[in-house]
Amino acid sequence: MQTANPQYDSLTRRFTRIHRFGHLLNIAQWDQQANMPPRGNEARAEALAEMSALVHRLRTDAGLGAELAAAEAEALDDAQRANLREMRRQWDGATALPEALVERRSLATSRCEHAWRSQRPANDWAGFLPNLKEVLAVSRECGQRLADRSGLTPYDALMDQYEPGMTTAKVRQVFGEVRRWLPDLIRRVVDKQAREVVLPPHGPFDLAAQRALCERVMHLLQFDFSAGRLDVSAHPFSGGVPEDVRLTTRFREDDFLQSLMGTVHETGHGRYEQNLPRDLLGQPVAEARSMALHESQSLSFEMQLGGHPGFARLLSPLLVEAFGDQAAFMPGNLNRLLTRVTPGFIRVDADEVTYPAHVMMRFDIERALIEGEVEAEDIPALWDAAMMELLGIDTRGNYTDGPMQDVHWAEGLFGYFPCYSLGAMYAAQWFAAMRRAIPDLDVRINDGELGVMFDWLAEHIWRQGSRWTTDELSARVSGEALNPAHFRAHLERRYLG
Amino acid sequence: MQTANPQYDSLTRRFTRIHRFGHLLNIAQWDQQANMPPRGNEARAEALAEMSALVHRLRTDAGLGAELAAAEAEALDDAQRANLREMRRQWDGATALPEALVERRSLATSRCEHAWRSQRPANDWAGFLPNLKEVLAVSRECGQRLADRSGLTPYDALMDQYEPGMTTAKVRQVFGEVRRWLPDLIRRVVDKQAREVVLPPHGPFDLAAQRALCERVMHLLQFDFSAGRLDVSAHPFSGGVPEDVRLTTRFREDDFLQSLMGTVHETGHGRYEQNLPRDLLGQPVAEARSMALHESQSLSFEMQLGGHPGFARLLSPLLVEAFGDQAAFMPGNLNRLLTRVTPGFIRVDADEVTYPAHVMMRFDIERALIEGEVEAEDIPALWDAAMMELLGIDTRGNYTDGPMQDVHWAEGLFGYFPCYSLGAMYAAQWFAAMRRAIPDLDVRINDGELGVMFDWLAEHIWRQGSRWTTDELSARVSGEALNPAHFRAHLERRYLG
Repeated sequence: MQTANPQYDSLTRRFTRIHRFGHLLNIAQWDQQANMPPRGNEARAEALAEMSALVHRLRTDAGLGAELAAAEAEALDDAQRANLREMRRQWDGATALPEALVERRSLATSRCEHAWRSQRPANDWAGFLPNLKEVLAVSRECGQRLADRSGLTPYDALMDQYEPGMTTAKVRQVFGEVRRWLPDLIRRVVDKQAREVVLPPHGPFDLAAQRALCERVMHLLQFDFSAGRLDVSAHPFSGGVPEDVRLTTRFREDDFLQSLMGTVHETGHGRYEQNLPRDLLGQPVAEARSMALHESQSLSFEMQLGGHPGFARLLSPLLVEAFGDQAAFMPGNLNRLLTRVTPGFIRVDADEVTYPAHVMMRFDIERALIEGEVEAEDIPALWDAAMMELLGIDTRGNYTDGPMQDVHWAEGLFGYFPCYSLGAMYAAQWFAAMRRAIPDLDVRINDGELGVMFDWLAEHIWRQGSRWTTDELSARVSGEALNPAHFRAHLERRYLG
Repeated sequence: MQTANPQYDSLTRRFTRIHRFGHLLNIAQWDQQANMPPRGNEARAEALAEMSALVHRLRTDAGLGAELAAAEAEALDDAQRANLREMRRQWDGATALPEALVERRSLATSRCEHAWRSQRPANDWAGFLPNLKEVLAVSRECGQRLADRSGLTPYDALMDQYEPGMTTAKVRQVFGEVRRWLPDLIRRVVDKQAREVVLPPHGPFDLAAQRALCERVMHLLQFDFSAGRLDVSAHPFSGGVPEDVRLTTRFREDDFLQSLMGTVHETGHGRYEQNLPRDLLGQPVAEARSMALHESQSLSFEMQLGGHPGFARLLSPLLVEAFGDQAAFMPGNLNRLLTRVTPGFIRVDADEVTYPAHVMMRFDIERALIEGEVEAEDIPALWDAAMMELLGIDTRGNYTDGPMQDVHWAEGLFGYFPCYSLGAMYAAQWFAAMRRAIPDLDVRINDGELGVMFDWLAEHIWRQGSRWTTDELSARVSGEALNPAHFRAHLERRYLG
C-alpha cells in the first residue's frame, strides 16, 4: 500500500510489534509476582531474559535508526511529530547502552536484589555492600554512556529515563525550597495533632472482607474491572498493560488501612493507564508521560482525595459494612486517621507531610554516588545525618529500616526517587488548577461526587499520553511549570488550616 | 567454544529459544482463560498472534533445516539421536504448511469457535454449518499438505500431529475389536448396576470447601504445588509449562464430583508434565510423548485409580470433613458412585465404559470428512445413526448435545479424538504391566499407599519424555504394542467381576 509517510508508517509498525511483545513480558512479570510458584522461577527468568533481549534488538535495529532519520523529512502532523519525538527518545536510550553493559547490569541487579531479600531482614549491611558496589559501578557506567549521548551529566541522564527533561538544577531548586519550610512545618503539624483525639480501629479485620472492601472502593474510584483486576502480591504494584491493568495489594489481619490506601494509590496509576489514548495504543506517544506524572495520579488518588473529608464520608459506611460498627469509623475520626503525620523510618509508610524528607535525602545521596563524589561505604553515615536533620530520627546501625529498606538501589534504579515527590507536587498543582476551573470542587467531593475530579484528570492528563513534553503539559494543565508553592499551600491548608 | 557436534549443539540452542518463547505463550494463554477481563482480549489476541508468528518463523528457519541435515552426520549418542528425530518431526510439521495456510486456518477456526460459543446453546446447526465447512476445507488442505510431505493419507497425516506413528489401519483394528464386544458389555453392566442401590450425595456443596477438597486430593496425588497451581476457568484444562503447571477446574454448587474428578484427571496430565526429564527441558526429546500417552496418564488417575475401591476409601473421610457426614460418602457407596455406567449424550461426562463409543463414532465421521467421503452437511445423520447403534440414544434434532457438543471440529482439531480412547486403552495396559511387576499393587492401593503407582509411572513413562517412539515405549513398559485386550479385561473385572 502506498502511503504519504512510508518511513513513519514503517516505524509505527515496528513499535506496534514491540508493544505486543511487551504485552507478553508485562503479563508474565505480573504473573511472576502474583501467581508463580517458587520452582517456576528459573524457567520464567530465562523466558523473560530471552524476550527482553529480543525487544532490545528490535529497539536498536539499525533499520529503525535509518527510518527515524528519514521520517523527520516527511509531512507529519503534530501528533505524528510528537510520536516521532518519543520514538527517538526511546531509540536514544536503547542504543546508548551496549548489549554487554545491559547484560552486566541485569546480572548485577538480579544478584543484588535477590540477596537483599534475605539481607534486609538480617540487617546485613556488610553482606549487601559488595553487591551494591557492583550495581553502583555498572550504574555509573550506564550514566556515563547515556551522558555521552545526551550531553547531560551522568545523574541527569539516568533521571531522564524516568522523568524526561528533569535536571539536577531543577530538582535542587524545587527541593531546596521545600527544605527551607518543611522541617518547621512538620514540627507545627505534629504539635497541632498531638492535641487531637483519634480513635484507632480495632481488629482483627477479616481478609475476605478487606478484599471485598478494596474492590468496592476501586468501583467507587471508577476503576474499569472489565479491563483490569486486583490481586495479591508480596510487594504491591501496578502492572499489566493499558488494555488489562493488573493491580496488586497485600493484606494484614491487624490493619486494613495500609492495604486499602495502597489500593487507592495503585488505582490512580491504573486509571491513568486505562485511559491513555486508546486509538494510539502501541505507539510511544500513547504511553504515560513520565514517572512523576504517574505518581501525580496515584497521589491525586491516595493523598489529594484520600485525605479529603469527602473521601472519609464515602468510606465510613463501607467500613461499617465490612467490619461492623466502630467509633473509629465515624467520618471525622476517619479523616483524622487518614491525615496523621508521624515522622518515621520507612518511606512507603510515610504520610504526605514527612514523605518529601525521605525522598530529598535519597536524591542527595544517589546523585553524589553517581557523580562519584561519595562511595557506597559512605551511605550509612549520610543516611543517619539526613534522617536526624530532617525528621529527628536516629537510624544508626539500623540498616533494615535505613538504607536497606528500599529495593531501588539494589535494582540500579538511580534517578527514580525524585519522581515520587515531584509527583506529589504536581498532584497539588493539578488540584489547585482544578479548583480554579471548578470552583465548587470541594463541595462536590464532599457530596461524594468524585466523577468531577476523574473527568478533569482524564481530559487534561490521562488522554494526553505523551503528546506533550512534561513542561508543555504542565503549562497546558495549570498555566505554569512545576511550582512547589502549590504543595506547600496544600499542606498548610489541610494540616494547619 | 569448540564442541564435538557443532550442528547439533546449534540446534539445541534454537529449540531452547523456541521453548522460552513458548513459555510466554503458554502462560499468556493460561492467563487468558483463568484471569483476563473481557476488554483485554483484543490486545491479548494480537500479542499471541505476533508471538505465534515469530515462533513459526523460528521453527521454519532455513538455517534450522540445514543444521538438521548436517547434524545427521555427527557422532551423536542415542539420546541425542532421539532428540534429533523429534526435532525433525517438528520441522517437518512446521514447514509442510505455508504461512498463508496457517493464517487462513487461524482465522477460520477463530471465527468458527467464537460463533460456536453462542450457537451451541441455541442449537443453531444451520448457523454453525457455513463456518464449519470453511474449517473443514482448510483442514483438508492442511491434511493434504502434510500428506504430500509424509506419504501418509491426509487423515493419518493430521492424526500424526497428535499421535506420531498412529494410522487409520491401526485405529480401525483396535476400535474394530472394541466395537465387537462393547455394546454387549455396556448392556450387561447397565443390567447388573440396575440391581445395585446407590445413594446420591445431597447438596448444596460449598464452593470454598470444594476448592479446598480439590487441593487436598491433589496433594494426595502428589501434585507439586511448588511447581504448579489450581485455578478456575470456564473450560477446565491443563496448561502452563513443565516447570510451572497450571491446572484449571470449575465448580457447581449442586455437584462436587464433576469438578473433583475433573481435577483428578488434570492432575494426571500435570504430574506427567512436572516429571518430564528436567535436565533436558526445552528440547523436543523432553516433551510428553503424544496425546494418547498424555491421556493415558490423566485416565490412569481419573479412571484406573478413581474407580479403584482404595481411592474411595481415601476420599471418604475428606468428603465428610468438607461437606459433613452423609451416608453417600461411605467408601462402598462412593466407589459405586464413581463407577456408575450410564449411556448419555455427552462425551466429557461419560463413564469409562461408554466413553469409547463416543470416540469411535467421531473417528469414523472425521476420517470420512477429511478423506472427502462425506461432507459437513452429512454429520447429523451419521451422528444420529451411530448414537442409536452404539448407545441406543436418539439424538435427532438435538445438535447442542449432539455434533455441536465438542469444540474440536470448530477448532480444526481433526485427528485428535482417537487419542482419548487410545489413552484409556494404554492406561489399562500400563496397569496390567504394573500388576505383573508389583503383585500386591491392589492391596497397597487399598491401604492408601498411592506412591507405588506414581513411582512406577514416573520411572517408566514420565521421565522417558519422547526418548522412544510410542511403540518402543509401549514395548519397554508392557512388553507389547497397544493391545485393547487389557482394556476389555479391566472393564470386565471392574464392572462384571
